[in-house]
Amino acid sequence: MTQPMRRKEFTIGEQQEIEQFLHEVSYGHLGMIGEDGWPHIVALNFVYVEGHFYVHGSKIGEKMRLLGSDPRVTFSVAKEYAIIPSYFSDPKLACPATAFFKSVLARGRAILVEDLHEKARAFSAFMSKLQPEGGYDEIDPADDEYRKNLLGVALIRLDVEDLSAKFKFGQNLTEPRREKLIHNLQDRNQNLDAETIELMKKYCPAHKE
Amino acid sequence: MTQPMRRKEFTIGEQQEIEQFLHEVSYGHLGMIGEDGWPHIVALNFVYVEGHFYVHGSKIGEKMRLLGSDPRVTFSVAKEYAIIPSYFSDPKLACPATAFFKSVLARGRAILVEDLHEKARAFSAFMSKLQPEGGYDEIDPADDEYRKNLLGVALIRLDVEDLSAKFKFGQNLTEPRREKLIHNLQDRNQNLDAETIELMKKYCPAHKE
Repeated sequence: MTQPMRRKEFTIGEQQEIEQFLHEVSYGHLGMIGEDGWPHIVALNFVYVEGHFYVHGSKIGEKMRLLGSDPRVTFSVAKEYAIIPSYFSDPKLACPATAFFKSVLARGRAILVEDLHEKARAFSAFMSKLQPEGGYDEIDPADDEYRKNLLGVALIRLDVEDLSAKFKFGQNLTEPRREKLIHNLQDRNQNLDAETIELMKKYCPAHKE
Repeated sequence: MTQPMRRKEFTIGEQQEIEQFLHEVSYGHLGMIGEDGWPHIVALNFVYVEGHFYVHGSKIGEKMRLLGSDPRVTFSVAKEYAIIPSYFSDPKLACPATAFFKSVLARGRAILVEDLHEKARAFSAFMSKLQPEGGYDEIDPADDEYRKNLLGVALIRLDVEDLSAKFKFGQNLTEPRREKLIHNLQDRNQNLDAETIELMKKYCPAHKE
């Protein structure tokens, strides 16, 4: 996935991997059209449930006003795995410096969700994702306290019209350069380097099943 | 900074803190207007130098096409510090679950930089930020190899017209709830919890100098 891939091109394995990624990353960036036509962005926690993104917020904030006037949105989720320094491939020039990352971009329309059962399901998904250890009563619209809170919060569902993913892990490298880079990362062994090596091996075109 | 603050409201200390944050976070999300009027986002490494953001890319990609037809852009940088579970404040309801974070949002215009000396300065800033350990020759347009590379890559400067920041660290909590939350985070002591506690204390309105 050096170039962005579109949903219709995904294999089932890729689809699962994208869903896993969207479950693992806690927040994304919601792009909207501002009132003056300028792009506007808000960083938000989100869940991805059955092909929809959900975000939430205040009923009276700027976000709701913008989405009410133009529901066209883009949602971007990215995670950087490793900064690849230039000297891994060139002793002199700075130019080969790069970064390996996963990113997913969705285009869609924002729908204000009013149905309390859909709201309860979406907020339950938020809790499973962000507070997997539990420690709260099940979110149930029949419970008076939950009902009041569900009524008071705004929930937005993004109906996805197009989803693309780009996972950049040196897929275009020649085999000797890939091997060298893997050794360099093994030696450095910082942050997500071990995970990056696994992903480099996984996405290597030569090793692709 | 519970509510977004605008640049003209920043103290010198806040300005420095924002610059430090922008130096620490390696990538942000660039919002553009797509050809069909839809918002579009790309996640990108960036530098913030003397009040300008710089991003770079291929001269012939989608990003350059979009910025050429509409230079109005928004750049969003966010970092999540801590997920605050609901049970830190409520034994039953899931509703108090939240997240503490820093975010900076800039609105501006994208300018294609052609001047090789400005390009060299900006790419040197990228290297200082993302490869502080060095390991490359100084980027110099007088060097033939660097010159060829500088000519071949597209550099975009974002001339910032408005910059706002939101640092959410429980500034609106009552004193007893802040104290309790700090104890909860001390007990949990995961990921960035220690840093989060420092920031809670720093931004506490009661402790503000």
